[in-house]
Amino acid sequence: MEKYRRIISEIRPADRAAMNEAGRYIDGLIKPMGSLGKLETLAVDIAGIKGRTRGISVKKRSVIVMCADNGVYEENVASAPQEVTVLMAHAMAQGKSGMTVLAEEAGSDFILIDIGINTDKKIPGLIDRKIAKGTNNFTKGPAMTRNMCVRAIETGIETVEFLKAKGYELLGTGELGMGNTTSSACVLMGLTGIRADQAVGRGAGLTKEAWAHKKDVVRCALDVNRPDPGDPVDVLSKVGGLDIAGLVGVYLGAARYRIPVVIDGFISAVAALAASRLCPDTTDFMIPSHCSEEPGFLYAMKALGKEPMLFMNMRLGEGSGCPLAFHLIDAALAMVDGMATFGEASIDEKQLVDIREK
Amino acid sequence: MEKYRRIISEIRPADRAAMNEAGRYIDGLIKPMGSLGKLETLAVDIAGIKGRTRGISVKKRSVIVMCADNGVYEENVASAPQEVTVLMAHAMAQGKSGMTVLAEEAGSDFILIDIGINTDKKIPGLIDRKIAKGTNNFTKGPAMTRNMCVRAIETGIETVEFLKAKGYELLGTGELGMGNTTSSACVLMGLTGIRADQAVGRGAGLTKEAWAHKKDVVRCALDVNRPDPGDPVDVLSKVGGLDIAGLVGVYLGAARYRIPVVIDGFISAVAALAASRLCPDTTDFMIPSHCSEEPGFLYAMKALGKEPMLFMNMRLGEGSGCPLAFHLIDAALAMVDGMATFGEASIDEKQLVDIREK
Repeated sequence: MEKYRRIISEIRPADRAAMNEAGRYIDGLIKPMGSLGKLETLAVDIAGIKGRTRGISVKKRSVIVMCADNGVYEENVASAPQEVTVLMAHAMAQGKSGMTVLAEEAGSDFILIDIGINTDKKIPGLIDRKIAKGTNNFTKGPAMTRNMCVRAIETGIETVEFLKAKGYELLGTGELGMGNTTSSACVLMGLTGIRADQAVGRGAGLTKEAWAHKKDVVRCALDVNRPDPGDPVDVLSKVGGLDIAGLVGVYLGAARYRIPVVIDGFISAVAALAASRLCPDTTDFMIPSHCSEEPGFLYAMKALGKEPMLFMNMRLGEGSGCPLAFHLIDAALAMVDGMATFGEASIDEKQLVDIREK
Repeated sequence: MEKYRRIISEIRPADRAAMNEAGRYIDGLIKPMGSLGKLETLAVDIAGIKGRTRGISVKKRSVIVMCADNGVYEENVASAPQEVTVLMAHAMAQGKSGMTVLAEEAGSDFILIDIGINTDKKIPGLIDRKIAKGTNNFTKGPAMTRNMCVRAIETGIETVEFLKAKGYELLGTGELGMGNTTSSACVLMGLTGIRADQAVGRGAGLTKEAWAHKKDVVRCALDVNRPDPGDPVDVLSKVGGLDIAGLVGVYLGAARYRIPVVIDGFISAVAALAASRLCPDTTDFMIPSHCSEEPGFLYAMKALGKEPMLFMNMRLGEGSGCPLAFHLIDAALAMVDGMATFGEASIDEKQLVDIREK
């Protein structure tokens, strides 16, 4: 059996009993029931992942960044030259990019995987797991072979295994690569059947003309490749990218090893959706962060049954929403561990009922 | 001249030159222009408050909580007994309430002011600045005299002066007191002329019947008192509360002493709006946090020209949104101080233009 199939077969859903127990405990904290909203949901979800309510540590944390180039770049769909992938990878390795600075501020490490950057050079600070120097231009045929796609997924799984062995307790997902909002739009359309105008946004800052062109390109990619919506690996290999496939593996690995994993923006959300199509239980381990500016993002989130917490008008990518969500996770766990219960606060039974039932 | 009038006369707007300078600097960081969204706005706004772009410290921080009871409580508009104000004040002083736990997690202190709790007892951990044992029931006449309202506003100003002297660099606003969503709805209606069904929500968890009743109560309060929309102190004294008036003073003081101050939920936003009516420049110093579940909240935010960053479905009060926003402020300042510029990352001029103009 291929490794990724074995990993999928080993995934178990979150612990519902632990979630119920956490919900009951949180309802007993000194506040109107449900009044801490999504902080409560976060705490319940993490209890389900970890199998307990209190004393959960998520201190050791890392954003995983899958870096790859995309053949569709040659259709002029990206807002920056392809060499910027390499330049940005250098800046990330030095901790000077947007996500890396935010990660450091949130007490998070980051791990950068070269899963398919279009260069022969080794980039210092990146882990070399290159499968190809970028994908093929999928307006002319499949982006990659099925075998390459499986290897990319397994690279993601193995990255989680590496971090698990090092004691990491919380993960985030990120990506780098010019043209990857285009591949993400194609994967989203391939998986869900939504139209180009619903899936395609203006990326990191396209003009109106470039936007219309991008929609033509994704329509063409779907027409040429006709991916099978029932086979996520077919969709990923025909119209996806090595970075997206790598992130699919990260979600599968996080679910297998029961580590909470934060969804960043559009690309990350599309990878999450693809992972959930391979194994629906993976969604139990995914935590939303911010609302991407890409229109396809909310389709993916809705399909995942998730709702973002941060509305920051961010559209940087890199995994930049994850460190912000890490702070909210910390807050949710502090709520559970630090707040008094009604009993401890000596608010008597009658008052407790008054507060809780209205 | 009354002290609060002198303080208002001393308020100067944010430093526009510093904001422009910060905006230019942030546009030169290695990311598509504007792609860090509200983190960029935060950094620009704080540059305007502090008069510089980089190296700003907001480490020493506190949430200010104005605690008071409301005479309108006797109309059965609150979801918990009035004694819960005292019980919750105890829990807050022990650092065991929702906000205080979140504050500690975000490296923040909190200061609890008894500006009008309905008890003769001193509550350990609260600073006694009691003006009255709660307000009068404003369905039967004014909540308090104009003089009491001015004293409450000045208590807020003096709290900021106390914290300023101790070196505090960032403030948050919070409140405690059964019935204060009702007084806030009345103040919002008094200031803006919106209707009861636009201003009144279900508080910390009212039934449908209790909600209809609450709308009747606020309509009655406005009818009985007919506050002058052009005179915020008239509105606050007739249909407000000591907590709201105290928070108005906090906003005035923060603006006078150029300290960023975070808006929490509905009550805090209504106080911010009242402060902005006393002195429009105060809004330069206000930073939004989360989107309250109260329907009137967004009216107040729109009137302030602010947009919340966090959508957490929270409706606890206490200032619980502030510590979450403190993390986002830390992230914004880390972005400015930590990210490389295009020049430093040796992304050449042509590529820079490519990234920035599309």
